[in-house]
Amino acid sequence: MIIIKVGGGKNIRWDFIAQNLKIFTKKNPVVIIHGASTLRDTIGTQMNVPTQTFVSPSGISSVYTDKHALDIFLMAYAGIANKTIVACLLQHNIPAIGLTGVDGMLWQAKAKPDLFVKIGEKTRLIRNNLTGKVEKINTKLLLSLLKQKYVPVLTAPAITVTGTIVNTDNDWATAVTAGDLQIKQIVYLFEASGLLKNFNDPSSIISHVDKNALQDYLLYAHGRMKKKLLGAKEAFRRGVERIYFGDGRIENPIDSALSGRGTIIS
Amino acid sequence: MIIIKVGGGKNIRWDFIAQNLKIFTKKNPVVIIHGASTLRDTIGTQMNVPTQTFVSPSGISSVYTDKHALDIFLMAYAGIANKTIVACLLQHNIPAIGLTGVDGMLWQAKAKPDLFVKIGEKTRLIRNNLTGKVEKINTKLLLSLLKQKYVPVLTAPAITVTGTIVNTDNDWATAVTAGDLQIKQIVYLFEASGLLKNFNDPSSIISHVDKNALQDYLLYAHGRMKKKLLGAKEAFRRGVERIYFGDGRIENPIDSALSGRGTIIS
Repeated sequence: MIIIKVGGGKNIRWDFIAQNLKIFTKKNPVVIIHGASTLRDTIGTQMNVPTQTFVSPSGISSVYTDKHALDIFLMAYAGIANKTIVACLLQHNIPAIGLTGVDGMLWQAKAKPDLFVKIGEKTRLIRNNLTGKVEKINTKLLLSLLKQKYVPVLTAPAITVTGTIVNTDNDWATAVTAGDLQIKQIVYLFEASGLLKNFNDPSSIISHVDKNALQDYLLYAHGRMKKKLLGAKEAFRRGVERIYFGDGRIENPIDSALSGRGTIIS
Repeated sequence: MIIIKVGGGKNIRWDFIAQNLKIFTKKNPVVIIHGASTLRDTIGTQMNVPTQTFVSPSGISSVYTDKHALDIFLMAYAGIANKTIVACLLQHNIPAIGLTGVDGMLWQAKAKPDLFVKIGEKTRLIRNNLTGKVEKINTKLLLSLLKQKYVPVLTAPAITVTGTIVNTDNDWATAVTAGDLQIKQIVYLFEASGLLKNFNDPSSIISHVDKNALQDYLLYAHGRMKKKLLGAKEAFRRGVERIYFGDGRIENPIDSALSGRGTIIS
């Protein structure tokens, strides 16, 4: 069993991923987890609810999610992205079924507390941030779908134990999903050829990373890549053995990542 | 087993429905099907993609769905409405799981052909209308979820056999779902106290309708109610025995409809 985590960039080629999966899923049960950040930002701009981010005290950039932002999030992730991806897979005869972390309490999250953050020189209290951290998943539901040969296509948001929908870090959720399902391998596909030493040089791929030295590589990580590395770190802590970072814009992206053309963390 | 079909009006009280379902689902397996028409219209207006309707040669008003309209549809139905309803049910300890007709090819539809329609005095060819009619459902998937005690929460769109997402008539899909699952009873909840003799007089409820005389009642039907009656007619043709029309704005809406306070068609 393997998780394929696909980023939400606009150049991701789902047709290539589907073509690759068509053969791949015959031998390997697959769980897909996807983002939709570009689409969310686009819809947010169109609806005059621009994405607001802040930097947490630990230096990680996070999205602030109030009620309006959560609606935009649902439109992009659960609405357009999830169903378009499922349809693309179905077009390639892959029996896909799309679920968010809300459905059947698939991704159970703990709400994040109010938080003091620095905005420039000022400290501001972030309240009512509808965000949570996934703590456990509904393994029974996923295993039942996998047993019936479905390919689950999962995405944020998640849900708290009291039934509040919360935005959540997909990379962290990926780690928890892998851990709870005892999955040993994750393939990350995104808009880069792998983890790069020099962000502006696609050929500067770091081909292997020691999982115990992941912390050191946070230096090389730009933007969202930081969260991916933190997610990877958490995945190893939860029993994952091998993580592949590969290019989601090329043909046969999964085979390519598995054969080591991107970055292997082990 | 019973289907509860809930309309997409803005005054529907999902909190009341959930409170009622909390007790009701303990004894009866339930499939919920919901609309989101008001929300779709609101988002469409905000995003400058107003809902376009046309009247078919048989006199039925239909929504024209191009690519942009389908995106709005997905945002409203699959995105905000479905997940908000699922969360509301989860808050009442009802193990809800939200799916569209796309997921796992749940609602398999036949695409509608290009169509000549009258707009005023002119005849216009409607092309590329991403609309289809549900012909069969994935019963295996639904039965598996019901067996695991989930409450499936279903909504349009549907999907063609070649994997194209299509807008679809939820009321027709409800009839097909009932038929394929051999469900004998459907409760419709909407923003009226039942089928009314006089649209403007809420007390003019028609308390009983002979299922064989449904055609005659199309006279009394305004707007979307027409589609509900046609859906009901199709449901009877597929083996349903009793349909209840009731008010989705009141407390205990399901019990109320079942006890005959709205309209019973049998």
